[in-house]
Amino acid sequence: MSKEITSRATDYAQWYNDLVLKGGLADYSAVRGCMIIKPYGFALWEKMRDSLDEMFKETGHQNAYFPLFIPKSFFSREAAHVEGFAKECAVVTHYRLKNDPNGNGIIVDPEAKLDEELIVRPTSETIIWNTYKTWIQSYRDLPLLINQWANVVRWEMRTRLFLRTTEFLWQEGHTAHATSEEAIAETLTMLDVYADFAENFMAVPVIRGVKSPSERFAGAIDTYCIEALMQDGKALQAGTSHFLGQNFAKAFDVKFSDKENKLDYVWATSWGVSTRLVGALVMAHSDDDGLILPPKIAPLQVVIIPIYKGTEQKEMLDSKGKELALQLKNAGIRVKFDNNDNNRPGWKFAEYELKGVPVRIAMGLRDLENQTVEVARRDTKEKMAMPLEGIEARVTRLLKEIQEQMFQKAFDYREKHITPANTWEEFERLLDEKGGFISAHWDGTAESEEAIKEKTKATIRCIPLNNPAEDGTCIFSGKPSKQRVLFARAY
Amino acid sequence: MSKEITSRATDYAQWYNDLVLKGGLADYSAVRGCMIIKPYGFALWEKMRDSLDEMFKETGHQNAYFPLFIPKSFFSREAAHVEGFAKECAVVTHYRLKNDPNGNGIIVDPEAKLDEELIVRPTSETIIWNTYKTWIQSYRDLPLLINQWANVVRWEMRTRLFLRTTEFLWQEGHTAHATSEEAIAETLTMLDVYADFAENFMAVPVIRGVKSPSERFAGAIDTYCIEALMQDGKALQAGTSHFLGQNFAKAFDVKFSDKENKLDYVWATSWGVSTRLVGALVMAHSDDDGLILPPKIAPLQVVIIPIYKGTEQKEMLDSKGKELALQLKNAGIRVKFDNNDNNRPGWKFAEYELKGVPVRIAMGLRDLENQTVEVARRDTKEKMAMPLEGIEARVTRLLKEIQEQMFQKAFDYREKHITPANTWEEFERLLDEKGGFISAHWDGTAESEEAIKEKTKATIRCIPLNNPAEDGTCIFSGKPSKQRVLFARAY
Repeated sequence: MSKEITSRATDYAQWYNDLVLKGGLADYSAVRGCMIIKPYGFALWEKMRDSLDEMFKETGHQNAYFPLFIPKSFFSREAAHVEGFAKECAVVTHYRLKNDPNGNGIIVDPEAKLDEELIVRPTSETIIWNTYKTWIQSYRDLPLLINQWANVVRWEMRTRLFLRTTEFLWQEGHTAHATSEEAIAETLTMLDVYADFAENFMAVPVIRGVKSPSERFAGAIDTYCIEALMQDGKALQAGTSHFLGQNFAKAFDVKFSDKENKLDYVWATSWGVSTRLVGALVMAHSDDDGLILPPKIAPLQVVIIPIYKGTEQKEMLDSKGKELALQLKNAGIRVKFDNNDNNRPGWKFAEYELKGVPVRIAMGLRDLENQTVEVARRDTKEKMAMPLEGIEARVTRLLKEIQEQMFQKAFDYREKHITPANTWEEFERLLDEKGGFISAHWDGTAESEEAIKEKTKATIRCIPLNNPAEDGTCIFSGKPSKQRVLFARAY
Repeated sequence: MSKEITSRATDYAQWYNDLVLKGGLADYSAVRGCMIIKPYGFALWEKMRDSLDEMFKETGHQNAYFPLFIPKSFFSREAAHVEGFAKECAVVTHYRLKNDPNGNGIIVDPEAKLDEELIVRPTSETIIWNTYKTWIQSYRDLPLLINQWANVVRWEMRTRLFLRTTEFLWQEGHTAHATSEEAIAETLTMLDVYADFAENFMAVPVIRGVKSPSERFAGAIDTYCIEALMQDGKALQAGTSHFLGQNFAKAFDVKFSDKENKLDYVWATSWGVSTRLVGALVMAHSDDDGLILPPKIAPLQVVIIPIYKGTEQKEMLDSKGKELALQLKNAGIRVKFDNNDNNRPGWKFAEYELKGVPVRIAMGLRDLENQTVEVARRDTKEKMAMPLEGIEARVTRLLKEIQEQMFQKAFDYREKHITPANTWEEFERLLDEKGGFISAHWDGTAESEEAIKEKTKATIRCIPLNNPAEDGTCIFSGKPSKQRVLFARAY
């Protein structure tokens, strides 16, 4: 191996960092808590972004762009929102630097102090609803279905590459509707879009559910979520979709006149996923040799590596390799022919394994004589000889198969890791020994939820949609409960 | 007309604002100098961004993402850069808000003061070169060809929608090379990419040139630019590409070992275009009835409007209209069938004219009987009857023709507005009476350049590439000059 990767068994957290750093996804920056997304990591995010963007547009949404800065006073307008959000933020207080009169470089010009501080957006409900006030007058202006791709900043004390960073990239949808029903339907539609994306593009199975009141977004009536399971048995919230009721419309006085000319406040939703998904993708599939990327969003789906000795052999393989690459490219496959002479095949094998390229094609002279190539799957490491004739169709099929099997593997793992617990002892033991989701009764109070969290670090990940009713007693308090909910330790 | 547009003759600046606001491109925000890019404006920017992004990738560049914040001290590292850039910036000084103990909403927590202030990036050379230091060791790491799509902030005192805003969206390319020649070649390649994009996508002819020393980017050895001409005779800098020499490599100590294992500083370029291009597009082509968008980047290329009376007629046209829309869509045309019953055809005609949709197809019952539709061009307002048979090919051809003729019209206007001036009187008169580019001799000194600017508000837009040598005397000082340069009043 060219680059040493810590094994999952040795140190799961370090394994993750090794993959992100050595796999070329991201790097630390000079700014506390902010990361640099490197070209390979950004190409992965681009694929995710473009797929999601298409799904948003297919469901009738349009993109727009709102300011990075939000006046401080806006946060005070929605009472719950300010409690949940406005605290750990980057605050702009000045708008000019100047040369230090004492010659010590540049300093903040004390005369350029803002009358009202500006907050670097941690989320944009406030500035957007302040705008919607001028855009919405009548039912004819509704629904308003807008999405924004943007950077946001939340001043996190403990950060981890992709999973929790001070600045991150995301999309935030903000929609406005004439009725409560329509807004709830939108919230659930977008939850479905997220689940569809996670499962069919990222090959990461997710549970759709609703958050307990204490885990709700600040200002929401209901927060829906998709929850994924990582290989270490910890859960990861992969996306949220909020039904905001009329809270923001009331805070920013956004009313519309309906068909009967009656004035009412507008109903709202917001929903978002972020670069955190890249972290989820890494942790859901990869192994001790590196990343394993699902074909649908892998920046590179196939790499072709020639095996040769000497210039003459190289030239023979070069023309054949380029031809094959073109053939695959024309079939819509993202392919690279790596004939770089600076690195040996063994180094390349390890490098593309580390980078998680789904399919590797090795090509030597003997293969050419036999009109075959050696094809290796990254996910299972299986190798097979594949005839060159009709190879586009075979590789296309193989990529589809890999995509499906990666999902199935993650799905089987997830299913094995949803375990019912009926006593407190069992609950604690399962959390420590098995991990995953624990399905247990909860009395519905914030007090029990908080106590469980303090004792075990496990949180209620969600109440699954269409959860069956079942009488029981709370795992913690012994009080009566009407349904089980899913607990887990989480990222 | 549904929305009143000020005519160009009455008030050019107001005409521009009317188009941007009433055409649905952008809106003012609650934050001083920051704009909201509305869905239609953002769709236009997306088309521009995607076309450019493809050109960047075709020329070997990759996207990445660097932090929004830059430590204040970084700006002091490159002496010229700090002078030119670090002054009018948004400065983050605190990272937390808290509830006012006196109950007056939220305040900045004085205890959460940053040790070192963070600057919201006005451009990213410093943070990127600080990173390149760890990415570049050997000639094998070069060239490094990276681009970033991002928001940036420059605290402008006087702002105008798209043309000059405190926050704007842009791309910034930052490349690193082993030799000066290679870096200069890259600078010129990207200038060509910009010119290609401006002329062949935006239909805006541009002059490629190099800036005079006083107009150079802060920290550059040479700044190349493309300069466009607006309908009011003012020039607009539409993109810049900088050869940075080894300035940033020296400031951030970025060295590489060459093939002979000798250490040298890396050579750099940077280049960028921004949402300002949307403003340029609006001002280059539009007329008193609204926007005129070139087909290649128009979010919507064709709108189909049914002309009917009563439900029965509507239904007959509905099925035919949907069929035609699908037919055009399948031919790769961005088309909308607007059968919205709330608005009358006349209103729709005006609305799509205002929005600059290149082709309008009107469809009534008599047309259907004749198997034709009425096709109107937005740019020339010509109308023609077009047979439905083979209409995809005809419309495709028409869109191509519109694209070319829009460029030709702008090109002819631009050519008529490059005027030589040989005396100071002529120079001043031309600026006041005709506008456009004035080709005049300049003695090459910053003093004359500054004096000309003060007296006339005209600046040297560029020294065109491949400028012919010509002996003459400076229009202002009378001192000897070896070539003419292009002056203009500019945005």
